[in-house]
Amino acid sequence: MPRRLLFVTGTRADFGKIEPLARAARDAGFPVTFFVTGMHMLDRYGLTKLEVHRTPGVGVHEFLNQRPGDPQDMVLAKTVMGFSDYVTEHPPDLVIVHGDRVEALATVLVTATNYIRSAHIEGGEVSGTIDEVFRHCNTKLATCHFVSSEDAARRVMALGEPRESIHVIGSPELDFHAQGSGVSLDDVRRRYDIPFADYGVAVFHPVTSEAGSMGAQAEALFGALDASGRNFVIIAPNNDPGSEAIFGVIGRLPPERFRVIPSMRFSHFSELMRNAALMVGNSSAGVREAPFLGVPSLDVGTRQTNRAAAPSIHRTAAGDRSGVAAFLEDQWGKTYPRHTGFGEGSAAERFVSVLTDDAFWTAPLQKEFRDLG
Amino acid sequence: MPRRLLFVTGTRADFGKIEPLARAARDAGFPVTFFVTGMHMLDRYGLTKLEVHRTPGVGVHEFLNQRPGDPQDMVLAKTVMGFSDYVTEHPPDLVIVHGDRVEALATVLVTATNYIRSAHIEGGEVSGTIDEVFRHCNTKLATCHFVSSEDAARRVMALGEPRESIHVIGSPELDFHAQGSGVSLDDVRRRYDIPFADYGVAVFHPVTSEAGSMGAQAEALFGALDASGRNFVIIAPNNDPGSEAIFGVIGRLPPERFRVIPSMRFSHFSELMRNAALMVGNSSAGVREAPFLGVPSLDVGTRQTNRAAAPSIHRTAAGDRSGVAAFLEDQWGKTYPRHTGFGEGSAAERFVSVLTDDAFWTAPLQKEFRDLG
Amino acid sequence: MPRRLLFVTGTRADFGKIEPLARAARDAGFPVTFFVTGMHMLDRYGLTKLEVHRTPGVGVHEFLNQRPGDPQDMVLAKTVMGFSDYVTEHPPDLVIVHGDRVEALATVLVTATNYIRSAHIEGGEVSGTIDEVFRHCNTKLATCHFVSSEDAARRVMALGEPRESIHVIGSPELDFHAQGSGVSLDDVRRRYDIPFADYGVAVFHPVTSEAGSMGAQAEALFGALDASGRNFVIIAPNNDPGSEAIFGVIGRLPPERFRVIPSMRFSHFSELMRNAALMVGNSSAGVREAPFLGVPSLDVGTRQTNRAAAPSIHRTAAGDRSGVAAFLEDQWGKTYPRHTGFGEGSAAERFVSVLTDDAFWTAPLQKEFRDLG
Amino acid sequence: MPRRLLFVTGTRADFGKIEPLARAARDAGFPVTFFVTGMHMLDRYGLTKLEVHRTPGVGVHEFLNQRPGDPQDMVLAKTVMGFSDYVTEHPPDLVIVHGDRVEALATVLVTATNYIRSAHIEGGEVSGTIDEVFRHCNTKLATCHFVSSEDAARRVMALGEPRESIHVIGSPELDFHAQGSGVSLDDVRRRYDIPFADYGVAVFHPVTSEAGSMGAQAEALFGALDASGRNFVIIAPNNDPGSEAIFGVIGRLPPERFRVIPSMRFSHFSELMRNAALMVGNSSAGVREAPFLGVPSLDVGTRQTNRAAAPSIHRTAAGDRSGVAAFLEDQWGKTYPRHTGFGEGSAAERFVSVLTDDAFWTAPLQKEFRDLG
Repeated sequence: MPRRLLFVTGTRADFGKIEPLARAARDAGFPVTFFVTGMHMLDRYGLTKLEVHRTPGVGVHEFLNQRPGDPQDMVLAKTVMGFSDYVTEHPPDLVIVHGDRVEALATVLVTATNYIRSAHIEGGEVSGTIDEVFRHCNTKLATCHFVSSEDAARRVMALGEPRESIHVIGSPELDFHAQGSGVSLDDVRRRYDIPFADYGVAVFHPVTSEAGSMGAQAEALFGALDASGRNFVIIAPNNDPGSEAIFGVIGRLPPERFRVIPSMRFSHFSELMRNAALMVGNSSAGVREAPFLGVPSLDVGTRQTNRAAAPSIHRTAAGDRSGVAAFLEDQWGKTYPRHTGFGEGSAAERFVSVLTDDAFWTAPLQKEFRDLG
Repeated sequence: MPRRLLFVTGTRADFGKIEPLARAARDAGFPVTFFVTGMHMLDRYGLTKLEVHRTPGVGVHEFLNQRPGDPQDMVLAKTVMGFSDYVTEHPPDLVIVHGDRVEALATVLVTATNYIRSAHIEGGEVSGTIDEVFRHCNTKLATCHFVSSEDAARRVMALGEPRESIHVIGSPELDFHAQGSGVSLDDVRRRYDIPFADYGVAVFHPVTSEAGSMGAQAEALFGALDASGRNFVIIAPNNDPGSEAIFGVIGRLPPERFRVIPSMRFSHFSELMRNAALMVGNSSAGVREAPFLGVPSLDVGTRQTNRAAAPSIHRTAAGDRSGVAAFLEDQWGKTYPRHTGFGEGSAAERFVSVLTDDAFWTAPLQKEFRDLG
Repeated sequence: MPRRLLFVTGTRADFGKIEPLARAARDAGFPVTFFVTGMHMLDRYGLTKLEVHRTPGVGVHEFLNQRPGDPQDMVLAKTVMGFSDYVTEHPPDLVIVHGDRVEALATVLVTATNYIRSAHIEGGEVSGTIDEVFRHCNTKLATCHFVSSEDAARRVMALGEPRESIHVIGSPELDFHAQGSGVSLDDVRRRYDIPFADYGVAVFHPVTSEAGSMGAQAEALFGALDASGRNFVIIAPNNDPGSEAIFGVIGRLPPERFRVIPSMRFSHFSELMRNAALMVGNSSAGVREAPFLGVPSLDVGTRQTNRAAAPSIHRTAAGDRSGVAAFLEDQWGKTYPRHTGFGEGSAAERFVSVLTDDAFWTAPLQKEFRDLG
Repeated sequence: MPRRLLFVTGTRADFGKIEPLARAARDAGFPVTFFVTGMHMLDRYGLTKLEVHRTPGVGVHEFLNQRPGDPQDMVLAKTVMGFSDYVTEHPPDLVIVHGDRVEALATVLVTATNYIRSAHIEGGEVSGTIDEVFRHCNTKLATCHFVSSEDAARRVMALGEPRESIHVIGSPELDFHAQGSGVSLDDVRRRYDIPFADYGVAVFHPVTSEAGSMGAQAEALFGALDASGRNFVIIAPNNDPGSEAIFGVIGRLPPERFRVIPSMRFSHFSELMRNAALMVGNSSAGVREAPFLGVPSLDVGTRQTNRAAAPSIHRTAAGDRSGVAAFLEDQWGKTYPRHTGFGEGSAAERFVSVLTDDAFWTAPLQKEFRDLG
């Protein structure tokens, strides 16, 4: 009987990561089900569970795990109960969780206490928030690890995990970029009404712990973009605390040179990135996708600190207007060789090749702490 | 206003560890409350909450977190909910948890998600079970660490914790042994009806994963003790799977040379140990208390593997009857210098001295992962 | 904006009752959603949620509310939490619950405490079990009542409910029988391989509180059927305690005269009943559907005590073999005029006509106890 | 073995009712435990659990069942889980609940689903709120009933309960008044600093559904009291919505004639009532205690509608200033014969005499609906 895989997804962001893995596993003959919970289930976050339902050939189980105002520990407790009941009724052979959110932690707590095999995607990364702590707990609770880089693998080993339980597959979202996007730049410009062909991409999200200064930070960044006279496509910030101030600054930019787009289909975003003159801001796309696509990027402020390094990535402090100006001046239109520090865009293929090895399924569930050198 | 300390205790065993710390903190002027849950609350485990209530000058909040048959994840979820409600109603300044049990994990999940300062006692130790995984999660979730040895401190650092958040205070149960026990050996012999003054101490608990062979293991061990012609005080095993077989073997030993005692008051056990000719078995007392008291000990089998090393500790495989015989022959009545690898019996004092330093209370709640050199 | 209706269903049985109401409401333009939980979600009860999903033009929200071994109060607590979160995220204008099960109670507890309008189907009926107590609680907690008979209406009034909140619509499952079944008897005989055209229908379920004597009861009943030399279609009993003994007796009957069928499509069962010479046993079909269809029925034992009375219904004690024989002799092939004590098969139509009256939606949510006469 | 009684208490108010019953049962030799939850556990309601702990010779189990902001259904779910775990660990022979609050409902849901015998105190009363619905559910879920009056007994019978399960014992708080209070009026005046000996008692609580007009209602009532030139002891209102407006009006009364007291010991309140010239307001004391003590009372507004009738009780609409004035004029200092419609102050004695009858413990747990003639 084929091994049943259960993927846990709580947000659009983690679904973007695990979807390529799930599709590849499905195509390799594994029965695949998604346990859909978290923000996916909530109207005010776009009811993104609908995207999961659009995946062909997979099962979907929905679980609403929260209401507005629920503290995070209550969400954790409810998710533990709901997921435990679910895997009791529908026992999977492998549960796959991603990242650092409370839903991943809740479900991997259930697998660990019920001796169900589990895999954690993108362990070993650092961010300096409570979420990072959850990420490392997930590492300790998971049976095995699919990480995005050698750096991450080393950190997972520092946490005591056996080398043989760690698989470096690269960052799964690069798989999209490695394949052709399937659309042309003209398609993208038409669909999203982008009047110019020579453009930079700017994405600037709020940093929760710096919410008070986000207006000034946005002023400095977008002021420098405006002063350059260049064209930019801006992807709107997420709605963490501080976002209003950023929206305020963006709203005053001249629309003929700044096209603001709330959100984009992934294929179109990939094509947009591929053809950009450069990228600025503080999204993970700047430190992951941009170097992979060879596009110069400027990482502004602290949001991606310690996340990645590559020759095409430049950095500047939040509020450093002249640093932004200098980057625009120097790097506009440059291209770099593909950076593969976060993989070669073949994460799904590597993931499946691990799963099709029988040894994977017979590795012990109990782990022994491995002291490093 | 003095800082309010909330100690979490789920078993008699962890209470034995944290009680000296709690008493010392109380004596130093901190308001101390115990959150009592887990096995403490259950009749079939002796309703040991009563021992907590006997501690003078502290508050006690009881929380029944389980019923027979509850899976561990359900216990976790209920404890998260109950503890979260409790700290919402009675916010502490510091929550202290111990070890590796689900109650400790549940409560430190609550403190981490609610930005409440927390301290973890005896992190960085290894045992190779699911409990060990919980222990390391507790380390990641706690704000700071009170560990028993330099080895443990190194492991906590490997997990990415900052050096300055780690305090080596030694193993708290040694504090009892460092002080006089307050009773004489005659008191002990009278109270527990021990007919001999020249004796070894034997404690042999089941190993869950080896439950099937515990009878044979007990046969080999106690057979060797019997064949030596020596006298022994036996403390009864705990009731993990496999205990019936051990009880069976013990029940057939000649009562004039083997005095079996279900459980002892701590002070009396300390005095008994101090005067023993040697110790055999697989309890933690053999690798922690015995070397501290200078009593030779034989650690049998796998239960304490990797837990500790000292010149007075000898080891033999489970079932190795002749190894036991040789140890009895060589080591009976020897004394060793005090081994302080697990502290000098001043854990409580060191604990309080950390807490009375203002810097402790202003250290950041957010931690940054520290990659080891 | 049209009023959103949320129907709660926990079993195939209650779905059979509320489905006609839900379809009619949908056809009248109300947006209809099902909250599917309870046995529907469990593999071992046939995963009947799939039937709900087959209803066209309605929304479905699934909630797994239990695992094997869960006590009923735990199921209640989990359903309260899950349903409360659901209606917080998707507020309905009216919640419709049916009958006497814990899922109905849990959800109507949520509506009552959140001031959401609710309707209870088939209140005011009696059965003498804990379920009956739940039924009357549902009556007290619901805003209004759709009952199956004047007797039931009187009982709901005795419970203090205002007359104007009670709507006698009849028993909804009669709606199926009032319409043509859409199949012919030949279709039924072909599909279920029934070799004879002149037959009685027998359905005999275990009575939980009499589980020990079910074998003897079945022996008396089926022995009498066998001795009559007549043909019978037997619908298999449900799997409550005592069912094995009944299955044992049924298994020894001569197959050429007894055709045993595990379960039937509703349309086919309706056509089978309509053409039966008579009906025997203890199912609700004997006291509700049979009199409505004019088919003589013998109600055996205590299971339907106090449930209904009609000229075509005969009764005999469990184990009264000669009473069964006399009934077969006297009543075979008789027809009675349609009995409409449980409605005229227009429950759905009446339900919708209440809902399309604006007064329904402006009636007060708060109720005043009405002392009867 | 004596039968173990478990009393559930969620508020100071219900504790006042059940305490005399519990004390009497304890004195009759029953082991008594209180399950203390609800507002008792919350600092902002005075942490009244301490009063329960002061009861000698009983056990106390605390359960914190809520945090600020919890919806009532979440409180219900948590109480169900906590109480179910408790009675699983400590099975009682009888659970006694009181009245109409969510804690009583939660616990009696647990007893009903677990076939634990239960008694409901003061069923059959009406108030017209969601709480009343809970009260009637409690009646349906409880095994037997201890009610305060024949009217209440009739209503419990209308709900289908068997006559023999209903015991009219009177209102338990009258027991306090029937005994001597144990203090003198001088004691009361000294302790609460009451400068006058000729006084009326006024208690006026907010009516939640009329919160908007409570200021005007209080103005009319206290204005009439002020204009009379008489002296009054005012007990402060509870803190339901609307209380601020009442406090505002009270705060402007002349202190030499109006002594405002936040809350009183029960014995002192009893003595104060006994010696009052009359009572005005809308507390239950006015329609229960006052007629029992023979003190004329004026019931103002809707709060006690349908609760009680007696010759000494007068009524007036909220806001009817002249009605209040007329009552003060006519009734000041009158005395009435003791009204025993709510019992003769021997509820506890009757309660115990039922419990000491063996038939009580062998009555069936399952109930049959009794249609009233």
